[in-house]
Amino acid sequence: MAVYTHLTTDEIAAFFTRYGRGDVRYAKGMAEGVENSNYLLGVVEKGRETKYILTLYEKRVRREDLPYFLSVMEHFAAEGVPCPLPLKDKDGQIIQEIAGRPAAVISFLSGGECRHIIPSHMEQLGETVAHMHAAGGKFKGWRLNALSVQGWRRIYEKTKNRLDEIAPNLEQIVRKELEFLAAHWPSGLPAGVVHADLFPDNVFFSGDKLTGVIDFYFACNDAFAYDLAIVMNAWCFTRPDWKFDTALAKALFTGYLRSRMLSDKERETFPVLARGAALRFLLTRAHDWLHRVEGAVVTPKDPKEYLAKLQFHQGMSFSGSWPVTSGW
Amino acid sequence: MAVYTHLTTDEIAAFFTRYGRGDVRYAKGMAEGVENSNYLLGVVEKGRETKYILTLYEKRVRREDLPYFLSVMEHFAAEGVPCPLPLKDKDGQIIQEIAGRPAAVISFLSGGECRHIIPSHMEQLGETVAHMHAAGGKFKGWRLNALSVQGWRRIYEKTKNRLDEIAPNLEQIVRKELEFLAAHWPSGLPAGVVHADLFPDNVFFSGDKLTGVIDFYFACNDAFAYDLAIVMNAWCFTRPDWKFDTALAKALFTGYLRSRMLSDKERETFPVLARGAALRFLLTRAHDWLHRVEGAVVTPKDPKEYLAKLQFHQGMSFSGSWPVTSGW
Repeated sequence: MAVYTHLTTDEIAAFFTRYGRGDVRYAKGMAEGVENSNYLLGVVEKGRETKYILTLYEKRVRREDLPYFLSVMEHFAAEGVPCPLPLKDKDGQIIQEIAGRPAAVISFLSGGECRHIIPSHMEQLGETVAHMHAAGGKFKGWRLNALSVQGWRRIYEKTKNRLDEIAPNLEQIVRKELEFLAAHWPSGLPAGVVHADLFPDNVFFSGDKLTGVIDFYFACNDAFAYDLAIVMNAWCFTRPDWKFDTALAKALFTGYLRSRMLSDKERETFPVLARGAALRFLLTRAHDWLHRVEGAVVTPKDPKEYLAKLQFHQGMSFSGSWPVTSGW
Repeated sequence: MAVYTHLTTDEIAAFFTRYGRGDVRYAKGMAEGVENSNYLLGVVEKGRETKYILTLYEKRVRREDLPYFLSVMEHFAAEGVPCPLPLKDKDGQIIQEIAGRPAAVISFLSGGECRHIIPSHMEQLGETVAHMHAAGGKFKGWRLNALSVQGWRRIYEKTKNRLDEIAPNLEQIVRKELEFLAAHWPSGLPAGVVHADLFPDNVFFSGDKLTGVIDFYFACNDAFAYDLAIVMNAWCFTRPDWKFDTALAKALFTGYLRSRMLSDKERETFPVLARGAALRFLLTRAHDWLHRVEGAVVTPKDPKEYLAKLQFHQGMSFSGSWPVTSGW
């Protein structure tokens, strides 16, 4: 929620000339983006205004991962997924440097986060996720998911002495879950590049129409069904007590299955993937919560939300493979 | 540098219908604005996109001052000063409420802060400030400048025990300056509504042309020459050692005097006004510096910048009235 690197319109206008795409009329620092600095640019070329986003990558994005993230966006855009397209300068370069930081300009998408989520949004989202998975299988690049089973254990080791400050017995709950997941985590599922962070703030709607998907800076190679589980956990539990909303989940699967089939193995292992997808955000949120700064503008998200989701999945007795048709 | 109240595009689009001015296509939280939450709105009406700013007034702006601030903007816009115009809803109302906060929508200005300030910018700024002062004399509203001599003493009393943490002997320097200003502060100068915070981030340029003045939330009734002294202090000292730049100051006065004359009394008292204008920001910055939060995203501005400016004005031996023609 901030701009960490302050640039003037002057400086951005001078920088933007390398694209040969018109003149910057304004450049507004955006509150979006916890990890990077983002500017919305208004550019006039031949009398017509076009908007772009200039992103400066701050510390938390590793420079060596940028070519992967930006080619993922290019790939998805080329495959017809509604997402930002990185802009090439006159020399064909996408990754630039400004104020000592790596930077890139991407196209602007209309729309914004949708708070009142209804099943028709979930159907569109399911279709888009399936479309991304179909496209993701064709991508040639590769990046390890650092936040999978091994990574979760590392965060657990760093936070275990203080987990109980968040909720009673949380250390024990997490330790046992890690043991369960280490024993049951599936391998050999259909995989490719996945978004891995498709939360409501990364999906834009305008009116009731899905207009785009943004923020590919957690993209990595992993199982498609795991990515779908992340989406389900992020969208299908409702405030304030994070109750599972079967109508939203049904709509998500309906949309998804319209564009991509789930194999028997994906359906059978889905309950385990859903538990892992819950533990992943429980752990990163717990870490950020324990390292929060009092009075800081960025408020860390509540890890207990993901404890509730994990416990929901632990308590489910699946009578068969997912999606569960009976009981919905 | 933040959005404190998080709203979705949905919520903002629903709110915006009260203006009967088209449909919100996007709403982006802006990093600008330390004290309020600002959203840039893209609105389409009859196929044409217009941009607006939605501001939610957070704690530091007093609700009872809002009618004054917003009528000041209306007044200046009507008098031809390039500044945002507050939007009236279908019932003629400007001040709204959203998410429990007072809010208003104002027109969007192109351009942005100019970092590489040259004399031609200062001439335009001087003309605009004079234009504002000519218009400010006609405004009917009235608001006390809480940050004048009495207000400075209050901040001094709250911070005096810790001022020396900022610079050696700062407590003594400030105390003596307060005594000097209490004895020499002029009264009866030409006065009216003034901006009182016209720093480079509140003046937009596009290319080398001044396009507008924003942020009227420190506006108050005070002497025009004091407002001009605030501008001179904010713009005519250069980094890194805050040396006074006579070329910039000359250009500021050249532009100003083209549109509004300074009386003999304004010229004679200008050195005192410049010292007061320096002390005012030295004190508020010292206060914010001493109450800063480690690790917070908003970094307080360095009070020592204004100590350097104050000491410059203290050390000047004026041979006559301001602007000093000899020695420039």
